[in-house]
Amino acid sequence: MGTPFQLLKTDTATQARRGRLQTRHGVVETPIFMPVGTQGTVKSITPAHLHEIGAQIILGNTYHLNLRPGSELIRDLGGLHRFMGWDGPILTDSGGFQVFSLAKLRDIRDDGVAFQSHLDGAKLFLGPREVMRIQQNLGSDIAMVLDECPPWPCERDACARAVARSQRWALQCKQIATESGFLAAGHHVFAIAQGSTFDDLRREAAEALSALDFPGYAVGGVSVGEPEPEMLKQVAATTPFLPANKPRYTMGLGTPPQMLKMIALGVDMFDCVLPTRVARNGLAFTPDGPMNLRNEKYRTDPRPIVEGLANYTSGFSRAYLRHVTLAGEIISCTLLTLHNLHFYLDLMAQARAHLESGDYGSWHRSWIERYEAGAAARVAG
Amino acid sequence: MGTPFQLLKTDTATQARRGRLQTRHGVVETPIFMPVGTQGTVKSITPAHLHEIGAQIILGNTYHLNLRPGSELIRDLGGLHRFMGWDGPILTDSGGFQVFSLAKLRDIRDDGVAFQSHLDGAKLFLGPREVMRIQQNLGSDIAMVLDECPPWPCERDACARAVARSQRWALQCKQIATESGFLAAGHHVFAIAQGSTFDDLRREAAEALSALDFPGYAVGGVSVGEPEPEMLKQVAATTPFLPANKPRYTMGLGTPPQMLKMIALGVDMFDCVLPTRVARNGLAFTPDGPMNLRNEKYRTDPRPIVEGLANYTSGFSRAYLRHVTLAGEIISCTLLTLHNLHFYLDLMAQARAHLESGDYGSWHRSWIERYEAGAAARVAG
Repeated sequence: MGTPFQLLKTDTATQARRGRLQTRHGVVETPIFMPVGTQGTVKSITPAHLHEIGAQIILGNTYHLNLRPGSELIRDLGGLHRFMGWDGPILTDSGGFQVFSLAKLRDIRDDGVAFQSHLDGAKLFLGPREVMRIQQNLGSDIAMVLDECPPWPCERDACARAVARSQRWALQCKQIATESGFLAAGHHVFAIAQGSTFDDLRREAAEALSALDFPGYAVGGVSVGEPEPEMLKQVAATTPFLPANKPRYTMGLGTPPQMLKMIALGVDMFDCVLPTRVARNGLAFTPDGPMNLRNEKYRTDPRPIVEGLANYTSGFSRAYLRHVTLAGEIISCTLLTLHNLHFYLDLMAQARAHLESGDYGSWHRSWIERYEAGAAARVAG
Repeated sequence: MGTPFQLLKTDTATQARRGRLQTRHGVVETPIFMPVGTQGTVKSITPAHLHEIGAQIILGNTYHLNLRPGSELIRDLGGLHRFMGWDGPILTDSGGFQVFSLAKLRDIRDDGVAFQSHLDGAKLFLGPREVMRIQQNLGSDIAMVLDECPPWPCERDACARAVARSQRWALQCKQIATESGFLAAGHHVFAIAQGSTFDDLRREAAEALSALDFPGYAVGGVSVGEPEPEMLKQVAATTPFLPANKPRYTMGLGTPPQMLKMIALGVDMFDCVLPTRVARNGLAFTPDGPMNLRNEKYRTDPRPIVEGLANYTSGFSRAYLRHVTLAGEIISCTLLTLHNLHFYLDLMAQARAHLESGDYGSWHRSWIERYEAGAAARVAG
């Protein structure tokens, strides 16, 4: 199983990387942000909108899609791409994280997780065989292995057990994907390195999974409630022990500064509901921090959210966006989601450009400085 | 004040007409349906979507926009077209109907209507001067006069008083629009003929307003709770007494068969929240009646809502639309609104084509027959 990932350039001042990942549905230029399409739609916008703002790859949620409408139905209708009308690459998670965070009465066993659906209480089970079958039904370009994500904080013994179990499941997932022909058909399977706050367990997990030669790796167990310095420390404790020639992905992250810091630690891929979720509450990202469009001061403001970020939303004034947000109109969700995702995608494009020109280190520090100063001024003002 | 309306053809078998209305923001081919953009947005879709499905003209609501964000603000930001990003024609109502149906503690006087905002209870007043000033602030291509819409059913005396008052207000609105230069600048003002269920009052209202030579006329006081035969009777009692060379508009109508029947009675323009409102509840219009996409029978249905109606929504299966509707996803509102409005606009395009080819009478009867048979079968099945 060869790697479809090209490492184009590694930064000298940081561990940041410029890469290119080939998938069954096209090429992904890294570093990259992946908009989240939990239930077969990136909330509030259409696939055409995603193309307009240059989305390269999106994420789908195995847990949600398997409960409703069911992965067999999606398979019978031609797979997730066709079902939701998105012809670019799709990464799907294994569903394990949602079982731990959403489902009722879960029971973690060595062969998988038994749980009750949060929708109707139905008794269900997800093991390595199930998560790989579901992701095969969906036709994922990048499938994630089943893992056990320890909570934060976590006792060392419990974490060690989760790491060991995750490693066994990763091996089983890879065997299943090999036997079924999933990998040979050009689908990728990414492993997930856990280890919570224990540097030695993180290293152990990363090295053991690296030996299994997966097409890509995720740093798991971050963004589960820990403070940001702790999060960065955990990523920094993992990436050095992952193979340099494979893409690296931190799941469920993050704010714009967090992503830039993670890139500097050698991470290539991100996904997060933040830009889509806050859009539905009237919040827009800017280079000077988040802007709350409900604020009275935008009542007569004729400017677009961000001058110079050209997209469909930039044709509308802050005054209009404030009005439709306060009026509870769906177009507010649509326009702010478009803007926020474009902002995230454009930030990744800027990161790639600065990696190519060789000044990523200084650029990302000054970008974060401006963003945090602006955010602080907004809070103060 | 000349007429910007060209009557291109009058049907021989019915009173249906094919016409063309010139506005400051372009030509409107009639018969036409106008999507409703109450609060500065046609709910769930963008102006780009409206262009995609061939919308020619949309409607804005004076009452809502004047309460929030305020017509002066919209004027200062360049008018409603620029504010909401729609460069085609806009018709605005006078706000009177919403005062009667939404506002609290209204007091109808000879000089206008005092009322309390349904949003915050603020005490407000709308008279002929106010409604014309607001619509001038919005930059309406077609402004409506203030009228008093009698309820259904209504006593004859009360109706006669409403007709007389509406006539005085219409005259005042026209005088104001003349003095302010609104009409000379190419904006249109349409009068509204009331009269409830009293044929002689309807005729009196229509004739008196016709003598005032407005650029267009509405049949008011229909679709206020009366049964459909009564509604058609009232329209039939009005249109013969309106000038043939002016466009005619029934406000707040209707279902697809109702519009086709109204066209046969000589009506040219329609607006209605029905296609946008029911879309947000999972209902899609088809030539065989409305389709409830929540229905179990569409669970695995790979077909588009209507075969042969090509638009963005037709790229998605009924199974997908059912899934996102049940999951409560915004994309369901967006895709079904797009479909329903396109269905309405396409129906008007078909009506225009059949008026041109001379078989409107037989075509509209068979169209309605199929629609009603399909709707009945769906209810039975």
